[in-house]
Amino acid sequence: MAQQLEPIARMVSQLARLPGIGQKSAQRLAYHIISMPLEDVRELASAVYQGRKAIRYCQVCGNYATEDKCSICANERRHNGQICVVRDPRDVAAIERMRDFQGTYHVLHGTLSPMDGIGPEDIRIKELMSRLSDGSINEIIIATNPDIEGEATASYIARLIKPMGLLVTRIAHGVPVGSDLEYADEITLAKAIEGRREM
Amino acid sequence: MAQQLEPIARMVSQLARLPGIGQKSAQRLAYHIISMPLEDVRELASAVYQGRKAIRYCQVCGNYATEDKCSICANERRHNGQICVVRDPRDVAAIERMRDFQGTYHVLHGTLSPMDGIGPEDIRIKELMSRLSDGSINEIIIATNPDIEGEATASYIARLIKPMGLLVTRIAHGVPVGSDLEYADEITLAKAIEGRREM
Repeated sequence: MAQQLEPIARMVSQLARLPGIGQKSAQRLAYHIISMPLEDVRELASAVYQGRKAIRYCQVCGNYATEDKCSICANERRHNGQICVVRDPRDVAAIERMRDFQGTYHVLHGTLSPMDGIGPEDIRIKELMSRLSDGSINEIIIATNPDIEGEATASYIARLIKPMGLLVTRIAHGVPVGSDLEYADEITLAKAIEGRREM
Repeated sequence: MAQQLEPIARMVSQLARLPGIGQKSAQRLAYHIISMPLEDVRELASAVYQGRKAIRYCQVCGNYATEDKCSICANERRHNGQICVVRDPRDVAAIERMRDFQGTYHVLHGTLSPMDGIGPEDIRIKELMSRLSDGSINEIIIATNPDIEGEATASYIARLIKPMGLLVTRIAHGVPVGSDLEYADEITLAKAIEGRREM
């Protein structure tokens, strides 16, 4: 019985550590990579490593950036007095895809989770507070996920900021557009009814 | 509207070129990689590039190898007179996982496909023939895929080799073990009935 070659085994085990890639997919990917021209593999590996290396956190909002400031914080036209608070940079990417929001962001890099020992000091709440001190901000839109940690984080931030006289809003929860009411879970449906608007 | 950062966009487009990874999965993978410690990303990228670089073809059978000969061809105990002919190295890996076959392999690196302009000169048939000349081989087991190209390749090789007085066999086609007869396609069922054995 021949063992799998060490370089292939190592490639498989590294690929299998990525989310959503099991042992079988990793194997399939590794064999594909082995069959690729060396130059193409060099480009792939370099895009992964150099890409990771080029990314740092925006000093203002905590979003991914290639400079000290991310492209949104660096854009004066985005400073419209609104800050949208999200859990992580991929939430920024999701909201940016909508092409609708014109303010800036604040990335918390986590949500409060006492069960996991993650308290207010562990996420970027202090940094958010210091952005509010210069009077240029008038609305904080809290767009953490509609789960237990996201809601707890939203409430915590709202309690901190409201006394400063700023408008604090929470994104709406409800039935997703294009979905079927029948398949919505009860909590989403309850939120949808609670948040109903006059037509 | 902020564009996606160039290093992330490049990583996404490289990952999306891999089989089975669409734009969305590539995006998810890229964001995961960005959030990984740099050292872990270096290990991943190096496993991919150095792994690809370390692999060459076995000079005897065409399987993947790290030396001139693959570990199977280099193992004297595997020289039992049987050669199993397969399309590519991942077929070798599949058969090796079975831990049952004790002979050596011959990897064609393709199958005959006149439609795609792939003829006998384009796959490793000449190399197979030259392995048969020293009289040490008595059986050729053809394990190309049970599809049109695989069958055509099997027939072609059988016609070449039979006149040399060697035993040429083809792996059995039939209903996969553990599967449901109801879901087997007609051709597989026909092959299963054609290949029936007395019990």
